[in-house]
Amino acid sequence: MAVYTEVADEELAGFLADYDVGNLLSYRGIAEGVENSNFLLHTDSGPYILTLYEKRVAVGDLPFFLGLMNHLAGAGITCPVAIADRAGNTLRTLAGKPAALISFLEGVWARKPRPMHCAEVGAALAQFHLAAEGFSITRPNALTQSDWRPLFQSCRDGANDVLAGLEDEIDRELTTLAEIWPKNLPSGVIHADLFPDNVFFLNNKLSGIIDFYFACNDTLAYDISICLNAWCFEPDNSFNTTKARALLSAYMRERSMSQAELAALPILARGSALRFLLTRLYDWINTPEGALVQPHDPLEYVRKLRFHQKISTAGEYGIDI
Amino acid sequence: MAVYTEVADEELAGFLADYDVGNLLSYRGIAEGVENSNFLLHTDSGPYILTLYEKRVAVGDLPFFLGLMNHLAGAGITCPVAIADRAGNTLRTLAGKPAALISFLEGVWARKPRPMHCAEVGAALAQFHLAAEGFSITRPNALTQSDWRPLFQSCRDGANDVLAGLEDEIDRELTTLAEIWPKNLPSGVIHADLFPDNVFFLNNKLSGIIDFYFACNDTLAYDISICLNAWCFEPDNSFNTTKARALLSAYMRERSMSQAELAALPILARGSALRFLLTRLYDWINTPEGALVQPHDPLEYVRKLRFHQKISTAGEYGIDI
Repeated sequence: MAVYTEVADEELAGFLADYDVGNLLSYRGIAEGVENSNFLLHTDSGPYILTLYEKRVAVGDLPFFLGLMNHLAGAGITCPVAIADRAGNTLRTLAGKPAALISFLEGVWARKPRPMHCAEVGAALAQFHLAAEGFSITRPNALTQSDWRPLFQSCRDGANDVLAGLEDEIDRELTTLAEIWPKNLPSGVIHADLFPDNVFFLNNKLSGIIDFYFACNDTLAYDISICLNAWCFEPDNSFNTTKARALLSAYMRERSMSQAELAALPILARGSALRFLLTRLYDWINTPEGALVQPHDPLEYVRKLRFHQKISTAGEYGIDI
Repeated sequence: MAVYTEVADEELAGFLADYDVGNLLSYRGIAEGVENSNFLLHTDSGPYILTLYEKRVAVGDLPFFLGLMNHLAGAGITCPVAIADRAGNTLRTLAGKPAALISFLEGVWARKPRPMHCAEVGAALAQFHLAAEGFSITRPNALTQSDWRPLFQSCRDGANDVLAGLEDEIDRELTTLAEIWPKNLPSGVIHADLFPDNVFFLNNKLSGIIDFYFACNDTLAYDISICLNAWCFEPDNSFNTTKARALLSAYMRERSMSQAELAALPILARGSALRFLLTRLYDWINTPEGALVQPHDPLEYVRKLRFHQKISTAGEYGIDI
């Protein structure tokens, strides 16, 4: 829920005059994203998203994010594209902030994903992994396995206030994962944040994926494990194998997974559960009381982590291996 | 900057199925309005605003607000209309809140109004006053002159923290205005909040007025004085007589003002300055530290009040009387 930067009407009209998008008809700040300021624009030629990048996004990463969207769209993925101005630039400055004009994607995200949605997202994730091959820019994952211990150090003091014994539990899991974390699995560009609110549907068909601001180079199967955590648990934290089977089967129809990837999936899922547990714990501790943006509950990911700790083979996620 | 109520996709789709607006394509919470939750919807038939009325709006007032918009639109005013469902209802319930589907008006509000904008708004205000004649529902102004003293009592303790001596200054002005407040001027439905962010322009022509949630029955010339305060001061708080002349002249071309209305204008402008001073003071004192919505500065309206206290005739606003 965020508009951190105000944009004046005349300044915006001047900005848009450098693009072939027609005249500005309206713009409204939209209440989503905690990283950036986003506006929904209407012009003569249709709707657009205008994004102003705020301080949490590294400017040096923007060519990766914007370039990735355009690379993926060129490879057939339905995702927003960064619009180039007449001089060919996609990254501009507006109201003193780095800014990009992005195409608008119609669609609605599924508040209560059903197995059919999980199948759609599984296929889309595989298509994403394949389409990103050949993208020339790389970006290391700033939240990969080796980053979790330092992140934990910055918020461990508050862990036991969230749940008694949580500090020790995370500490042990970090140690274990550092020892058993799989190496040398197929890697490439991953989305790294493909939660339901980043996947749009129209008439029960996936109509696009958005929000590439965590995308990076890392293990492909780790990205799958993020989706298992984001899509296949019920609100009561029970794991839905029908959804997992739908997601994984659809993924594998588009891109086959090696035996090593399948074998690593439970460990990768522990890792991704821990990664979201840690960032949620950090946000939980660092969100001032009374803030309008309510932080996500870290306990949800404690429960997911514990679930995956009891899994020994990917077959237990509901797929035939 | 506000979305207080989440709306689930399937619930919204079901809600829209009762209207002849086509299928839902997308919806985004928009970051404006402190009273309600607002969403910008796209459907097959175009864009709409969906408003969920939160607790600051009295449900009993909604037939007045929604009915007024539709009455005005029927009388030729360019403003949003409340869409009726197939059963003819404009006021519905969604996500447990009173809700209305409203037509979307393209346009951009002027961050830096010029005299030309002031002329447009002056004419539109007069047309509004005339078009509202015959509207059958009435709503007393909850923030009229007699309400200011009780409002002041609720926030006077913080006044001197905002500005030394402010408590006494407001106290004296309340007493004076109670004595000299004009009676029996022409009255009718007033907008009561026609600030620049509620007036849209396209190609420098007024394309619509929005936000009728302060509209009520009161003195028409008081509404003009609100616009003088909202449109005719510069950012440095100096009064721009060119803008005031443009606004008042354009108003009077559409609806003539009586000598009594013109004579009362400086007192009405003191009153409207005090009214916004008091609500800003209240919000300033009652906004928790660290809140995302920054309250407006009450001092701006102290300066406006002091300006009008020195005015003896409406001629000093730049018009020929």
